[in-house]
Amino acid sequence: MAGATVVGVGMTEFGVHGKTLPELFADAAFPALDDAGVEQDELDAFYFGNAMSGLSENDTHLAPKVATHIGMTDVPFQRFEDACATSANAFKNAVQAVGAGVHDTVLVGGVERCTPETGMETPEMTRVFASASHRQYEQPSGLTFPGVFALLTKRHMHEYGTTEEQLAEVAVKNHYHGNMNDRAHFGGDKTVEEVLDGPVVADPFRLMDCCPFSDGASAVVVTSDGLGDSFGAEGVDVTGVGHGVDAVPLADKDSLPETKSARDGAHEAYDDADVTPGDVDFAEIHDCFTGAEVLATEALGFFEDGEGGPAAAEGKTRLGGEVPVNPSGGLKAKGHPIGATGTAQITELTEQIRGEVGERQVEDARTGVAHNLGGDSGTTVITVMEERA
Amino acid sequence: MAGATVVGVGMTEFGVHGKTLPELFADAAFPALDDAGVEQDELDAFYFGNAMSGLSENDTHLAPKVATHIGMTDVPFQRFEDACATSANAFKNAVQAVGAGVHDTVLVGGVERCTPETGMETPEMTRVFASASHRQYEQPSGLTFPGVFALLTKRHMHEYGTTEEQLAEVAVKNHYHGNMNDRAHFGGDKTVEEVLDGPVVADPFRLMDCCPFSDGASAVVVTSDGLGDSFGAEGVDVTGVGHGVDAVPLADKDSLPETKSARDGAHEAYDDADVTPGDVDFAEIHDCFTGAEVLATEALGFFEDGEGGPAAAEGKTRLGGEVPVNPSGGLKAKGHPIGATGTAQITELTEQIRGEVGERQVEDARTGVAHNLGGDSGTTVITVMEERA
Repeated sequence: MAGATVVGVGMTEFGVHGKTLPELFADAAFPALDDAGVEQDELDAFYFGNAMSGLSENDTHLAPKVATHIGMTDVPFQRFEDACATSANAFKNAVQAVGAGVHDTVLVGGVERCTPETGMETPEMTRVFASASHRQYEQPSGLTFPGVFALLTKRHMHEYGTTEEQLAEVAVKNHYHGNMNDRAHFGGDKTVEEVLDGPVVADPFRLMDCCPFSDGASAVVVTSDGLGDSFGAEGVDVTGVGHGVDAVPLADKDSLPETKSARDGAHEAYDDADVTPGDVDFAEIHDCFTGAEVLATEALGFFEDGEGGPAAAEGKTRLGGEVPVNPSGGLKAKGHPIGATGTAQITELTEQIRGEVGERQVEDARTGVAHNLGGDSGTTVITVMEERA
Repeated sequence: MAGATVVGVGMTEFGVHGKTLPELFADAAFPALDDAGVEQDELDAFYFGNAMSGLSENDTHLAPKVATHIGMTDVPFQRFEDACATSANAFKNAVQAVGAGVHDTVLVGGVERCTPETGMETPEMTRVFASASHRQYEQPSGLTFPGVFALLTKRHMHEYGTTEEQLAEVAVKNHYHGNMNDRAHFGGDKTVEEVLDGPVVADPFRLMDCCPFSDGASAVVVTSDGLGDSFGAEGVDVTGVGHGVDAVPLADKDSLPETKSARDGAHEAYDDADVTPGDVDFAEIHDCFTGAEVLATEALGFFEDGEGGPAAAEGKTRLGGEVPVNPSGGLKAKGHPIGATGTAQITELTEQIRGEVGERQVEDARTGVAHNLGGDSGTTVITVMEERA
């Protein structure tokens, strides 16, 4: 058992922000500290995530800059970068640290700006994101991330008969959920027909199969299990963490649609938490593309291989369904400020299990899972959180 | 006490390399594994450091790419970035993890290419490095790192009367040491006159006061203290780690020449190891500029404030002196492939304490200190290593 408890969470709206990265992060960090009722001098360390600001904003060594802005220049800080799994990996390292007694209580979070507020338009930002694909074997071919996940998904369609309509159902569901989340980048009632009518980005993905580029920040306060009742807010336990990995580039993976890293990470996290997929009440999944959500619902054991598409079409992953997936709206509708996504998922798990999210509340949400993948799934961090005993 | 032991070390020559980052890292990692006599399936995790490859080579999510190249896609990996303190911070996190029982035995290392082999000439690479200075308050003024350390050093000269001749003595010493290190980027016998005759880069620094841009990699195998005798090579104990921090930008620091982060980090590391500065037999210091070494010898407590310059001029930091500093040649002569520098210092400490370094051997080297700073000293990681009891 991981032995850690989340006692405070905060996040900005995901969308378009004109603020600097330190300012934006502060808008998540201070609410997280307030939520926990923790003073800064009670924090022992800062685990910080940012993926791309070197490339996108000529900004590295960002941890001390952000720490200075929020007045935390008296604790050790480190920046993590693991592509889109950046802040989940920072969180995993923080959970291990408090679980093992290295620190008592720490701040974890991430920030990223990906919109034209950075000065980069979408084509240039797409090239920035593509830095996570293989430099020698993939980038020279022009492979960017819609193409990466199109390759995974096309193979899934080939093996199992997954359809574009089923993928579209994922987009429709996540927009439906996002519509109930006032921090989401996009809401709106979409239909399958609208999704299928969109322009092709990378076959089989159309525009609405792809998550947006967003700006945003998220932060959580994590303490050891033993201190979980020492703060103002209701703590939610982190009972399992798993970190699965796989070869990069794609050509070195044994299987594309299997997403081995998600399976290995889930196995490790479930074992750690002593739960089975059937115990999971809801999940936040890394749906950078609709196909990624379908693959992940299988890798996490919610459905048999090949059943992820039909399950989405049958509403099993919708609020009120068998296992609601991405009640927050997911990356698809909530948005995807890369380095902020991992701890934003932890924020949603925490608030769902506390019962604080209003109309998008999952009924009897006691056990939630977060699935945050990096790059082409070379890294996947899985977190199991449960109502505090 | 940190409770960790280094059981294997490896590094490439620092200099100019045409290899890709994964290939270059392999040239450090495999020697480290061979040195330890460890099989890859005995490793539990990979702590990886790289500072700038997003900006310099459009290459992020580098941990799985490097792990794939060395055949380590079955353990969790994470990339750290803390500017020039990148791999020392990865090392600190690894030491904490094995010390606390999170992992048994891990690989830690870093790689970077900074020469025109990246496709970037020196002016462009200088801009890349400047991404670590403050994005809003310093970069717009054109402040690059020679200027940052010139500001720190000028203040030291003002307060204490430190002279350009004393700074030049640091360069001369480190080239003298580097001459005995066949992995050093530069050797050569330099004279104070030659240094003072060089072109000004940023007053008071002339060309020979500045470390070079280098390509290179380094790697170490770290295990828990309890397992320190289980491997092939002689283990060297990590008895103290300290991680000091300070505000960024410069204008927010209480003092420039004091380098608070180094003092705080040293205090923490010495306490952890239960040693005093007087117990230290030698040190590897982050001499990105000659002035940085002078400031660090004071911050580490080897000399009183203001005495660092005279001490260098009197030969106290030379091999055979009171406390030899940078027997490897330091960043100045050995070279500075940013993300590789921290674990290269650990490599030198290990090999010195084992007595393996030939003519640059520090006599009776039983206790060594590594000082690796990031950015404008917003981050400084201090490590104390000692002969295994």
